[in-house]
Amino acid sequence: MVDMKLIFLGTSAAIPTAERGLSSVVIKRGNELLLFDAGEGMQRNFIRAGLGMNKRMKIFITHMHADHCLGLLGLLQTMSLHGRTMAVDVYGQKKLAEFLTENMRIINFGLLFNINMHIVDCEGVVVKEKEYQISCCEAKHVVHSFSYCLTEFDRPGIFMLDKAKRFNIPEGDLYSKLQHGQDIIYNGELIRSSQMTGPPRPGRKIGISGDTRPTVKLRDFFRNCDLLVYESTYNHDKYQKAVENFHSTAREAAILAQESEAKRLFLTHFSTRYEEISELINEARAIHENVEVAEDLKLVDIPYRKSD
Amino acid sequence: MVDMKLIFLGTSAAIPTAERGLSSVVIKRGNELLLFDAGEGMQRNFIRAGLGMNKRMKIFITHMHADHCLGLLGLLQTMSLHGRTMAVDVYGQKKLAEFLTENMRIINFGLLFNINMHIVDCEGVVVKEKEYQISCCEAKHVVHSFSYCLTEFDRPGIFMLDKAKRFNIPEGDLYSKLQHGQDIIYNGELIRSSQMTGPPRPGRKIGISGDTRPTVKLRDFFRNCDLLVYESTYNHDKYQKAVENFHSTAREAAILAQESEAKRLFLTHFSTRYEEISELINEARAIHENVEVAEDLKLVDIPYRKSD
Repeated sequence: MVDMKLIFLGTSAAIPTAERGLSSVVIKRGNELLLFDAGEGMQRNFIRAGLGMNKRMKIFITHMHADHCLGLLGLLQTMSLHGRTMAVDVYGQKKLAEFLTENMRIINFGLLFNINMHIVDCEGVVVKEKEYQISCCEAKHVVHSFSYCLTEFDRPGIFMLDKAKRFNIPEGDLYSKLQHGQDIIYNGELIRSSQMTGPPRPGRKIGISGDTRPTVKLRDFFRNCDLLVYESTYNHDKYQKAVENFHSTAREAAILAQESEAKRLFLTHFSTRYEEISELINEARAIHENVEVAEDLKLVDIPYRKSD
Repeated sequence: MVDMKLIFLGTSAAIPTAERGLSSVVIKRGNELLLFDAGEGMQRNFIRAGLGMNKRMKIFITHMHADHCLGLLGLLQTMSLHGRTMAVDVYGQKKLAEFLTENMRIINFGLLFNINMHIVDCEGVVVKEKEYQISCCEAKHVVHSFSYCLTEFDRPGIFMLDKAKRFNIPEGDLYSKLQHGQDIIYNGELIRSSQMTGPPRPGRKIGISGDTRPTVKLRDFFRNCDLLVYESTYNHDKYQKAVENFHSTAREAAILAQESEAKRLFLTHFSTRYEEISELINEARAIHENVEVAEDLKLVDIPYRKSD
């Protein structure tokens, strides 16, 4: 059981407002932080949220627009000023590496920790850890852009102690093996892990769109998300603007979420023209039954799916 | 009579806090904005303060540390997204020009307006307008840094209508000449402007320290300021840290203000270690009788000096 929360650190598109900062969202999974985008000024909400300067951390930048990457410099510097020495893994396009090195040269700031830079230039799995992986998919934006998915691997089913006892399997090492998916031979008999455990317990899946038009590819990429954070810069009246600027409307976000069977949809990345987001929620709720609205510093619990 | 206000847009040193953003202060003089430093995220307070995206504007960057210059990119982009087409004058070191061009190339953002870049590499007058000038002086910081002064020229004294009438000077053009400092010959007689006007009315002088140790040079540079905005990163207990990091203590700020006969001293640029600034105020007030504390979005009226 790993606790997982998502916290919005910035939810405005292109220009910040008094209430909304520029794009950034973090997933706190156990003791690790997975940050997606770092718009200018996001470090203040990072600080307000008390996320901590010394955690294991991976940072993913969807695309190289200022409102998605500019805050990375300040965040890195602040972590260093707080004495961080643990390396940070940064994932983004080649231009992100150039952005970091050039600015570190020009502004002349050194960090106490290393940056492990991972160039993301094609689709696929970019992180594979023991319990989860993170993959990316080409989005469709003005500039080259990627969407991301965090997918936890299924956990083994619940170990059926009674059944194991009925097979006279001794407690200890063999229990543990069966519990973790290992078949065993005991007393000359093959005993499958699947005989002793319930059905695998599904991991969670979270999708982060970045800036994009909706596409069939993204619909498939986000299939069956527990939580989909999807941009809705405009309401559907501004469909033409969405097409021109390679963004999505709230209606399109909801259609994509519905078709990809996302359980929950969080709308974010709102144009500053909307003081009231209710219009966008309403048009999305007409299509998807579980629509919520991102707000700066909103904290979202992501529980495990109930076993079917 | 030109209305002049100063508004703090960011008042924290190096790292922002929940309450204080990174260094930035703007002087609104009539319809013109004079911005000094642009720490990351300052555009949000710029927006909150309702300063307007289409005003005449000059921007001065004291030095090339991220917490003083990073916000410039976002501010410029936001002004452009708001449709600004009027050029902006930017004053800073050569590295600032490189910072702007490199980031505009890497992040690929175009502006609808021109940047008139003015390289500041030595002391002296950097702006000379009809009613004021802005000059800079070498500060003493870890990196090359400049302090700035805005100095309004004295306005002519009040025109003495009764006296002019007694000299039988006809109203109109000659009045205007005398009023604006021009001597005239009337009826074969030299009449000096100074005979017909009261004493010149002094302009205002505002000093902005940027990051610095106190120096004799700065004391002279800031002589007789109506308002001095001076960094006080530390209290005097942390004197050694101030020396090491090339900053000032609140006590040092007050001594410099006192010796340079600044009328009002505003302390700013506080280390995040001080949740309560009262300690810093108290040690400064023990020395200078008119000490105030900068806070984000604090608006300060700068009235004309009463004629002596």
